[in-house]
Amino acid sequence: MKLYSYFRSSAAYRARIALNLKGVAYETVSIHLTRDGGKQFAPEFKAINPQMRVPVLELSNGEVLTQSLAIIDYLDETYPEPPFLPADAVARARVRAVAHGIACDIHPLNNVGPLKYIKSTLGKEQPAIDAWYHHWILVGFEAIEAWLRPGPYAFGSDVTLADICLVPQVANARRLKVPLDRFPKIVAVDEACLKLAAFDRARPEKQPDAE
Amino acid sequence: MKLYSYFRSSAAYRARIALNLKGVAYETVSIHLTRDGGKQFAPEFKAINPQMRVPVLELSNGEVLTQSLAIIDYLDETYPEPPFLPADAVARARVRAVAHGIACDIHPLNNVGPLKYIKSTLGKEQPAIDAWYHHWILVGFEAIEAWLRPGPYAFGSDVTLADICLVPQVANARRLKVPLDRFPKIVAVDEACLKLAAFDRARPEKQPDAE
Repeated sequence: MKLYSYFRSSAAYRARIALNLKGVAYETVSIHLTRDGGKQFAPEFKAINPQMRVPVLELSNGEVLTQSLAIIDYLDETYPEPPFLPADAVARARVRAVAHGIACDIHPLNNVGPLKYIKSTLGKEQPAIDAWYHHWILVGFEAIEAWLRPGPYAFGSDVTLADICLVPQVANARRLKVPLDRFPKIVAVDEACLKLAAFDRARPEKQPDAE
Repeated sequence: MKLYSYFRSSAAYRARIALNLKGVAYETVSIHLTRDGGKQFAPEFKAINPQMRVPVLELSNGEVLTQSLAIIDYLDETYPEPPFLPADAVARARVRAVAHGIACDIHPLNNVGPLKYIKSTLGKEQPAIDAWYHHWILVGFEAIEAWLRPGPYAFGSDVTLADICLVPQVANARRLKVPLDRFPKIVAVDEACLKLAAFDRARPEKQPDAE
């Protein structure tokens, strides 16, 4: 399999963790999101993913999958062990709520596209952009902190989809120096996950395209 | 079951469609998102959902589920007929990519919170806010249009999660007068879906709290 990835993309980071947890070997194809105005906008990449985003997972038969959560669900359905969701339907919904609370309500607001729009089209300077970035993480993490049931992972002793989404979001928060002292559960879950090789190997700084 | 909903929330609209498709009876509890500064911020609602958002699904046993896509997956796992996803893993991933392309990459940017932030904190007037709103729908729909395989629904002759997410997003686009002429597949899918009673009864204007 090939993963079209960018070391700093937290959506690609999710896919890397998932691949590692399932023990699926993959080759990294780096799509630099800021160099030359963004390699994701090149016609050859647009032909692969019309959304012009990473991650993209190319299967060995040439099929191309987009959207990190769709890729992760695909991996979970195709490689059942270890499962990313608990067996009970209500417990699954709680795990998914955390995943979507991050993947829908935090990450998209702080993505490259909106930040560029705020700068170029809304004419705002870096301090206003940083404040926007902090705001959505702080607001979003407040709910996530209330939802988590750690021990030591987001929902107990098994790693779930919630952990796969949480760790990359915490990495973004730390990179932008968002204070995390109000979120002791989030910090503890992140620490527990990063002790696992599958998470550690997926870190941005350990990717072949890291700068 | 009780659905905490707001007629104009497109995330609540998704949950209403899903409940209708599964034939699950529910009572609507209206949470007005703009009146009195937003009823979702009331302490009694924050106790139900710390994220202070709709939809919330309260099960008959009192369990509370949050996040529209988590609620919809719960319904799909608990009430198998009709299924919201095809059987094949790659086909499922394609349906989910459309769902997440809307639920992650369009809708959150145009939610009440960010629009209010752009107005109050970034100090922008309505024309700039409307342009932002249009921008994310136009950019997002370009990829969705490329991904759809209609006939007559988003992925063939069965309604899927993609349709459940698409129709509410088209409703938002129309309300804000976003031109849709570049998206003939999206327009056709929306029209086909709204002929079904499950979609029609879920429309904002047919809700008990519609204004």
